[in-house]
Amino acid sequence: MSHSRRQTPPNALTVPERALPDTPLRQALRFRPGQSLSDLDPAATPGYPGRGKADADELTDLIRPALDQWQERLFADGKERGPAAGSVLVVLQGLDTAGKGGIVRHVFGLVDPQGLHLASFKQPTPEELSHHFLWRIRRQLPGPGLIGVFDRSHYEDVLVVRVDELIPAEQVDRRYEEINRFEADLQASGVRLVKCFLNISPQEQKERLLARLTDPAKWWKYSTNDIKVRAKWPAYQEAYQVALDRCGPAAAPWYVIPSDRKWYRNWAVAMLLLEELDDLAPTWPAPDYDVAAELARVRSS
Amino acid sequence: MSHSRRQTPPNALTVPERALPDTPLRQALRFRPGQSLSDLDPAATPGYPGRGKADADELTDLIRPALDQWQERLFADGKERGPAAGSVLVVLQGLDTAGKGGIVRHVFGLVDPQGLHLASFKQPTPEELSHHFLWRIRRQLPGPGLIGVFDRSHYEDVLVVRVDELIPAEQVDRRYEEINRFEADLQASGVRLVKCFLNISPQEQKERLLARLTDPAKWWKYSTNDIKVRAKWPAYQEAYQVALDRCGPAAAPWYVIPSDRKWYRNWAVAMLLLEELDDLAPTWPAPDYDVAAELARVRSS
Repeated sequence: MSHSRRQTPPNALTVPERALPDTPLRQALRFRPGQSLSDLDPAATPGYPGRGKADADELTDLIRPALDQWQERLFADGKERGPAAGSVLVVLQGLDTAGKGGIVRHVFGLVDPQGLHLASFKQPTPEELSHHFLWRIRRQLPGPGLIGVFDRSHYEDVLVVRVDELIPAEQVDRRYEEINRFEADLQASGVRLVKCFLNISPQEQKERLLARLTDPAKWWKYSTNDIKVRAKWPAYQEAYQVALDRCGPAAAPWYVIPSDRKWYRNWAVAMLLLEELDDLAPTWPAPDYDVAAELARVRSS
Repeated sequence: MSHSRRQTPPNALTVPERALPDTPLRQALRFRPGQSLSDLDPAATPGYPGRGKADADELTDLIRPALDQWQERLFADGKERGPAAGSVLVVLQGLDTAGKGGIVRHVFGLVDPQGLHLASFKQPTPEELSHHFLWRIRRQLPGPGLIGVFDRSHYEDVLVVRVDELIPAEQVDRRYEEINRFEADLQASGVRLVKCFLNISPQEQKERLLARLTDPAKWWKYSTNDIKVRAKWPAYQEAYQVALDRCGPAAAPWYVIPSDRKWYRNWAVAMLLLEELDDLAPTWPAPDYDVAAELARVRSS
């Protein structure tokens, strides 16, 4: 996992030096089990190479071509080599208003929608509840060459379920290990996990809920359930702490994204995706036909 | 179906006058059954308000905010009202290299990927073949509030199937009427169809196939089947002519998009989508809660 972007891999795409963090974000934002979530500042901007919000658009524009080309190469490789090409799965978790939807729009909107597989996990349906909790998750795994994005995920099954005591504690307890085995299997099968916890402060959430209630264009984003969940803030923080502590093995670490500043949050997730793709470094597939012969056929057509 | 963008509907979003065509594109590009496809110039640029390729990016940027906001309103309305909100389904048909993939990337990449439902129809699988030809299509219809995009569609079942005589002629013949009934049902259920035939010239296709064979980053897009299909150009033109003649009722017309110029093709599809959304004009949903009461709850939280 050495991936300073300065040690240019043979296949790397060029991103201007000034658009890169000093330390790879996969190091700077990586959660180390045992670390206390309450020590992590939701308004921090670790690794950000600019001066603030003012240059966020420009910095994003500078990495966009590389993101775009990696994505297309990955897609092409998936078409050609199937599962051997691998895939990336970005898991987005965070409390209401933390920015899961904003990231889908602003970060994943940067690449070709054909290369994405988006899944949003709501409260489980009766059918989903009748299955193992990973059933609905497996059905939404990204195919070869795709970038999957989960807006909420299997972690809800150790978060809301734990906070609201929807199932016995021993059963929640077993799920952490089930998740670790599941994710290890995914990694082994070529699915690269990028697990992001969007860390916001209670003050910032309050601002955002108020913003939703005062703008008619945002009313639809508000649910009366939001305030009930907000009242359980400490219980959710504790549930996230346990999930991050217990489901953060070296192979599938969590990244804690400071999310009080939307521009930093979006930039950070884009950069984490770029670092993962740099590491995967898909190449354009070799042709499965004779190029010279086909050229001759087209020319004479 | 009166929809000059000058007669501003009450709910219309503002697009600068200079970014709009003189005549709505839904009129200018609409195929009239009986019209000969061979009379339509694939290099034309009807309705384009700019001077050429040079201002295509700027003109697209000018309509992007309206597209973006219509899409979000439609999405919000779908969340709130379910099927009553309706949806849009863009059908992309055209020969190899005509630009189906390019449109997905450049036009539908303009809006929030969460609001899209993309489906790409390849050669049918054995399971698909064991069902009615519309079975796989129905499974991919966009949900409420979504913009669906079909990269190929049910029309393949009267195109390749007709050209290669894969089923008896009488059976193909029945399918045109089945498609008309199917599309009428869709329209009646609130799915707005935007059927686009991407019209390219044989010369332009040749250039694009050669480009794919001479750039290693495009080798994966080439298939040895492409040149076999190209050899059947007149048969495909005839099959398209019949499909457009027989499946172009007033409620679900075809648009013929001149596609030799990629910048025009992309702009035209974006504008057709905008006109359809202007016509649908979704509004922000009303809140299903007491805004003042919720504001008070959040403020005191």
